[in-house]
Amino acid sequence: MSVNKRKIFNDPVYGFITIPSDIIFDLIQHPYVQRLRRISQLGLTHLTYPGALHTRFHHALGALHLMTLTIDQLKQKGTVISAEEEEAVYIAILLHDIGHGPFSHALEHLLIDVDHEELSLALMHELNQQFEGRLTVAIEVFTNRHHKRFLHQLISGQLDMDRLDYLTRDSFYTGVMEGKVGYDRIIKMLRVIDDQLVVEEKGIYSIEKFLVARKIMYWQVYLHKTVLSAELMLKAAVKRAQELYLQGAAIQLSKSLTTIFQSSWSNKDQRDDLLSAFVSLDDVDILALLKNALYCSDFQLHLLADGLINRNLFRVELSVIPFKSKDVDLIKEEVATHLEIDINLMDELVFTGIEQTETYDFQESEIKLLNKKGEVVPLTSFQLGPFSSSVAKYYVCYPKLTNTAF
Amino acid sequence: MSVNKRKIFNDPVYGFITIPSDIIFDLIQHPYVQRLRRISQLGLTHLTYPGALHTRFHHALGALHLMTLTIDQLKQKGTVISAEEEEAVYIAILLHDIGHGPFSHALEHLLIDVDHEELSLALMHELNQQFEGRLTVAIEVFTNRHHKRFLHQLISGQLDMDRLDYLTRDSFYTGVMEGKVGYDRIIKMLRVIDDQLVVEEKGIYSIEKFLVARKIMYWQVYLHKTVLSAELMLKAAVKRAQELYLQGAAIQLSKSLTTIFQSSWSNKDQRDDLLSAFVSLDDVDILALLKNALYCSDFQLHLLADGLINRNLFRVELSVIPFKSKDVDLIKEEVATHLEIDINLMDELVFTGIEQTETYDFQESEIKLLNKKGEVVPLTSFQLGPFSSSVAKYYVCYPKLTNTAF
Amino acid sequence: MSVNKRKIFNDPVYGFITIPSDIIFDLIQHPYVQRLRRISQLGLTHLTYPGALHTRFHHALGALHLMTLTIDQLKQKGTVISAEEEEAVYIAILLHDIGHGPFSHALEHLLIDVDHEELSLALMHELNQQFEGRLTVAIEVFTNRHHKRFLHQLISGQLDMDRLDYLTRDSFYTGVMEGKVGYDRIIKMLRVIDDQLVVEEKGIYSIEKFLVARKIMYWQVYLHKTVLSAELMLKAAVKRAQELYLQGAAIQLSKSLTTIFQSSWSNKDQRDDLLSAFVSLDDVDILALLKNALYCSDFQLHLLADGLINRNLFRVELSVIPFKSKDVDLIKEEVATHLEIDINLMDELVFTGIEQTETYDFQESEIKLLNKKGEVVPLTSFQLGPFSSSVAKYYVCYPKLTNTAF
Amino acid sequence: MSVNKRKIFNDPVYGFITIPSDIIFDLIQHPYVQRLRRISQLGLTHLTYPGALHTRFHHALGALHLMTLTIDQLKQKGTVISAEEEEAVYIAILLHDIGHGPFSHALEHLLIDVDHEELSLALMHELNQQFEGRLTVAIEVFTNRHHKRFLHQLISGQLDMDRLDYLTRDSFYTGVMEGKVGYDRIIKMLRVIDDQLVVEEKGIYSIEKFLVARKIMYWQVYLHKTVLSAELMLKAAVKRAQELYLQGAAIQLSKSLTTIFQSSWSNKDQRDDLLSAFVSLDDVDILALLKNALYCSDFQLHLLADGLINRNLFRVELSVIPFKSKDVDLIKEEVATHLEIDINLMDELVFTGIEQTETYDFQESEIKLLNKKGEVVPLTSFQLGPFSSSVAKYYVCYPKLTNTAF
Repeated sequence: MSVNKRKIFNDPVYGFITIPSDIIFDLIQHPYVQRLRRISQLGLTHLTYPGALHTRFHHALGALHLMTLTIDQLKQKGTVISAEEEEAVYIAILLHDIGHGPFSHALEHLLIDVDHEELSLALMHELNQQFEGRLTVAIEVFTNRHHKRFLHQLISGQLDMDRLDYLTRDSFYTGVMEGKVGYDRIIKMLRVIDDQLVVEEKGIYSIEKFLVARKIMYWQVYLHKTVLSAELMLKAAVKRAQELYLQGAAIQLSKSLTTIFQSSWSNKDQRDDLLSAFVSLDDVDILALLKNALYCSDFQLHLLADGLINRNLFRVELSVIPFKSKDVDLIKEEVATHLEIDINLMDELVFTGIEQTETYDFQESEIKLLNKKGEVVPLTSFQLGPFSSSVAKYYVCYPKLTNTAF
Repeated sequence: MSVNKRKIFNDPVYGFITIPSDIIFDLIQHPYVQRLRRISQLGLTHLTYPGALHTRFHHALGALHLMTLTIDQLKQKGTVISAEEEEAVYIAILLHDIGHGPFSHALEHLLIDVDHEELSLALMHELNQQFEGRLTVAIEVFTNRHHKRFLHQLISGQLDMDRLDYLTRDSFYTGVMEGKVGYDRIIKMLRVIDDQLVVEEKGIYSIEKFLVARKIMYWQVYLHKTVLSAELMLKAAVKRAQELYLQGAAIQLSKSLTTIFQSSWSNKDQRDDLLSAFVSLDDVDILALLKNALYCSDFQLHLLADGLINRNLFRVELSVIPFKSKDVDLIKEEVATHLEIDINLMDELVFTGIEQTETYDFQESEIKLLNKKGEVVPLTSFQLGPFSSSVAKYYVCYPKLTNTAF
Repeated sequence: MSVNKRKIFNDPVYGFITIPSDIIFDLIQHPYVQRLRRISQLGLTHLTYPGALHTRFHHALGALHLMTLTIDQLKQKGTVISAEEEEAVYIAILLHDIGHGPFSHALEHLLIDVDHEELSLALMHELNQQFEGRLTVAIEVFTNRHHKRFLHQLISGQLDMDRLDYLTRDSFYTGVMEGKVGYDRIIKMLRVIDDQLVVEEKGIYSIEKFLVARKIMYWQVYLHKTVLSAELMLKAAVKRAQELYLQGAAIQLSKSLTTIFQSSWSNKDQRDDLLSAFVSLDDVDILALLKNALYCSDFQLHLLADGLINRNLFRVELSVIPFKSKDVDLIKEEVATHLEIDINLMDELVFTGIEQTETYDFQESEIKLLNKKGEVVPLTSFQLGPFSSSVAKYYVCYPKLTNTAF
Repeated sequence: MSVNKRKIFNDPVYGFITIPSDIIFDLIQHPYVQRLRRISQLGLTHLTYPGALHTRFHHALGALHLMTLTIDQLKQKGTVISAEEEEAVYIAILLHDIGHGPFSHALEHLLIDVDHEELSLALMHELNQQFEGRLTVAIEVFTNRHHKRFLHQLISGQLDMDRLDYLTRDSFYTGVMEGKVGYDRIIKMLRVIDDQLVVEEKGIYSIEKFLVARKIMYWQVYLHKTVLSAELMLKAAVKRAQELYLQGAAIQLSKSLTTIFQSSWSNKDQRDDLLSAFVSLDDVDILALLKNALYCSDFQLHLLADGLINRNLFRVELSVIPFKSKDVDLIKEEVATHLEIDINLMDELVFTGIEQTETYDFQESEIKLLNKKGEVVPLTSFQLGPFSSSVAKYYVCYPKLTNTAF
């Protein structure tokens, strides 16, 4: 590759990240990827874990780095991967999250009525045009239409580079050490057998610890009560702002947001406009909205924005069974009394729903091990902990009835 | 302290940060301190070191944590520190940076014509009123009017907790491992002798490595060419936006910025307004300004904003001697030709100046050691590296003449 | 304490270990404790994990360090611990392993027919005389006859400082990162309720990861096949040397070993002699025996010593059901043929037996948690992994039938 | 390579060490290399830093690991290295310390009157015969007779893999964090220009920190007073034991030691015997000697052995000028009086001499940098600390006049 583009990034997590080729360099400097610098990886998690300010940009680089290590390992062990395929997986992993919007998952579907994967794919097609077809194989791998299926598993599977990086990185930046994953050991144990990614049996303890770490990250971080509260408030605030805007209220918005508030992905004619608004949209648009909302006269929006900006978050209660509607009604009454507002406004300030852990999926895509006899066997053939137990919890979230914070 | 306020923060750097008392808890949740969550510690350094997204909020907690360790050590070694004094140093270190504006040092003096320390003090006085005088001793320590002078040295001195935390934290988040400081060892070696903070002689190697690490952080991070370029561009963009605004151009600004663009700290009548605008001002206001500026017709502002948002940064050249004005003129001509714009606009797009390392100050406040004979001696009485050598470099910074980035 | 005795040890694991008082300092420099410098913590594990050369001495210091952190935490949370009790637990943890012989568990019961705990106690009584009764309370705590039962739990229980240190230290020195334990987080979560050590509920994930880490250490390290082989060979070699010595063979032995080979703890008249031989006995005596045995004409002893010194270890096979005696006989025949020796010698060269994990004990001493309602509940009331599953494995261990090593 | 020999070592320092080829595997399992498991890397340093128990074996593996990383880097950057040359540097670095005797440098020249390098070379020639000439190129590289000189620089030079590993490893195991070296960054910055190893300019801060770290390791560890004392005592004990043995005293020795005590390398006829005794000689022989000496009636040997075994070390005083002989005489008198022995015995119990730092050598083999203009320039052309300052210190070492230890 050209010397000018031999770029090394410093990374607190991995030390150094070396950019493997020119096209990767050129893609990184494209505004679509640079935009990920302004998309926080974990939404509003930093309100609970103040270190968790890392971005989708850094995650994309990190996943790319792990991919280079993995490809190197697999090639050393005799798996045939052509230069074109190698470039394709690098591109695919670099761009896999390019369709994320502000605060990542927190506002997904609310701002644009579509999955982030579909937006990623739309933007990859756009880039493929700009780069004159050089992303074609990457798109095949990303959409699992490439004949070597293990390449797709590296992008999206039980042990893909996306997951290895985000668990590692999220654990690192939140400081939740129990969520640390031995990514280097897992990668050293990977093999491809019959076009399928497997783990050598001696890596079983790394896998066990990986599954425990993942479970811990769900309960300690991804489903943390305070984070849940902040993200419910954020959704409500954005929704309320959109309503007010569509009703004609004078509310300062970025140009991108005005387009997005008025358009729908399901309306195919609006997709082009939506997409060009989307590539200019990031956390800043939303934060600026919240800050401006502090000067807004709408009670609900103001309450939500103030709570988010000054970290005066709503209370959350959890339960393994659904909350009874009469209990929720009681809460609404108390809140209305406490805030001295009309009970009818409560639907925008008291939220109920259900939260679930993403579970270790036994059906579809179980982790496969290569046992000492050389057979490929499912992880469940080993006696490990009950990592599958999906736990669902119902929540109710509402403004605090006292004036203490935290 | 009350059980409800027994708060522990996770910190990737130190593991856990325990809040030592109720008033510290209450101050942390005050909007003035919460605002520091939106002030990046290192300005635009993350454009070079993508992990460097940590905030003044996290730095304030970190410095507080080191202070609790230090006070604990000093007390164990027999230094008398009353409960009131202990609370005072905790408050003072927590609030020492409360007067920082958007992007920390990058826009200091430009947005408001005063040092951040003076703003910190102004806000502490404001908080002292709100907290009914409970910050009085803290303010004495902060302004070095407390009779125990070593307390002030812990806030502001060659080895203060501010510096120990920021070097540690900046090194951690940039991933510049060579800048790592053995804060725990230094703290273990601190003593108070004759109301003066000293280091036990056996800690001399920790001090040596600290001074080298600091020097490395200056050259690798704080004075990094790319960071310098980004911050010069940021200043120019904000300055240009202010000009345009004052000329009546239609440019979307946050409410705080409109006040700040129209007022001056040197005009005492405007200070109250400035201060209340200031406490609502953070990185978001500036980033939103830049993003909006992408839709602005002013050539210079648009060029600067686009460069900052899409990381298409100006080139920087350094020299130990000043650049000759004819050479700078030549650059201006080339840039004007390349950009096809009037040479008169070049003063806003070609920047010259001088950058200097903060040096190890031998005159005023040299590090003191307690040698094995029990004498307090200056660090310079030991033969160490030439840490004093302040190096100044002249720079010229201008738009790239090619289309490559990075 | 006296300034001279203010000693700080450097520890790769914890950074610094500070000696808390004069008597601890004096005990550390006593030959009984210094002897632990020559007792390897993990027997012959370094033949598999070359970093695992740490000693009982370092473990004793490490456990002491964790005890100082824990006592500090408990006192901060309001548990009353007198200065005398504090000193007692420090002494008890420092000395808890003083009765370990060469290679720790590997030769326990073989060299002296008694548990190491009983030898520890015997030596503590001896030290108590030398220190004029200052160990009396420590002995009460060690033997669980002190009225504050939680003090004993800190020495010997599911979450005692012994275990926290050895898991941490063994994981560190073997490099088995999956065995790393979050000792600092666990200690931060400890409380004493009703004279009982409990963990606050929010520490449950640290406990879960602790239990997984422990299980991993058992399978990856403590019950590692190669380590098992080396320790079976070591036992056989020592046993054979003792037989030869008692038969009058000319075999060079240390003075301590000659006493130990001729005496028995069950013969009370020999205990004094045994104990004074024991306090001069360490890994060196055994290693020197093995090295001298290389010049010995006895076939079995020579084969075993050569295998241990030059790392030519026997093969181990594992099975969940016992090996059939006819299969073992077949192995003996093959080995005899391969080595060209008499089949009758095989009983000393082919070993069978059973290995078991120490299990998480649900009956006796389950970990207790303090739930959010303030109730003390057993860990099993939370849904975690099946950490209890004790797994037993049968083994057969015999000389390799080829000439390859490793 | 054969699957059976695909061996991975766990290393606390680097995580994993992968054995690069079959012959390396076979050499590692040779008794000459296995013997290094019983040679401590840092002599008696563990008496001061209890973690410093690592061995020459682990260091050899570590240096090998760094070599594989370096060769990989250099090849990526276009340096041509044939498979044969690659194998040769791996062999040469693995075996570079094979000639070290018990406690590494501590007894060098005393036990055998020759450098360890010459013994390494003698053993390499021996192995070359056993391996039928496959070490020929390795020996060329080791002795700097290979035409590619940079290969030798990787084995022995200012930035060789030996040094990078021992500084890293010694810092790690002593717990002297200030001595930590950024080996990964330095390796990433290496290049070969004109058959010469150079460092890219952007690595200058890593080099600076490396030089400071090295200096710190000298003063904190390698020349530590207590370590100096222990090693002087060890030398005196071994010397005294040899005298006694040659005088016919009944002193238990290992077979190897009896040969070594009676032979000389300068007598060429004795070299074969010496070499075969040497390959059976390790720390165990010396430790067993010391332990047996506790039962010896010779006053001096007993005093030295007891001090070493029970860590009752002699006092050391340092001075930048030589001690006057009358002051030394005075010390001898005081010691003689205190110990109640004849003053004539003092020559064996009071030691004087000089200790020096190995210095950064400007003359011969200065570190070269590749500056940004593509020129190779010496490190001294950059303004860094005065790393060259060799400091010599005179010492006097004698039995303590009080009964306190530590």
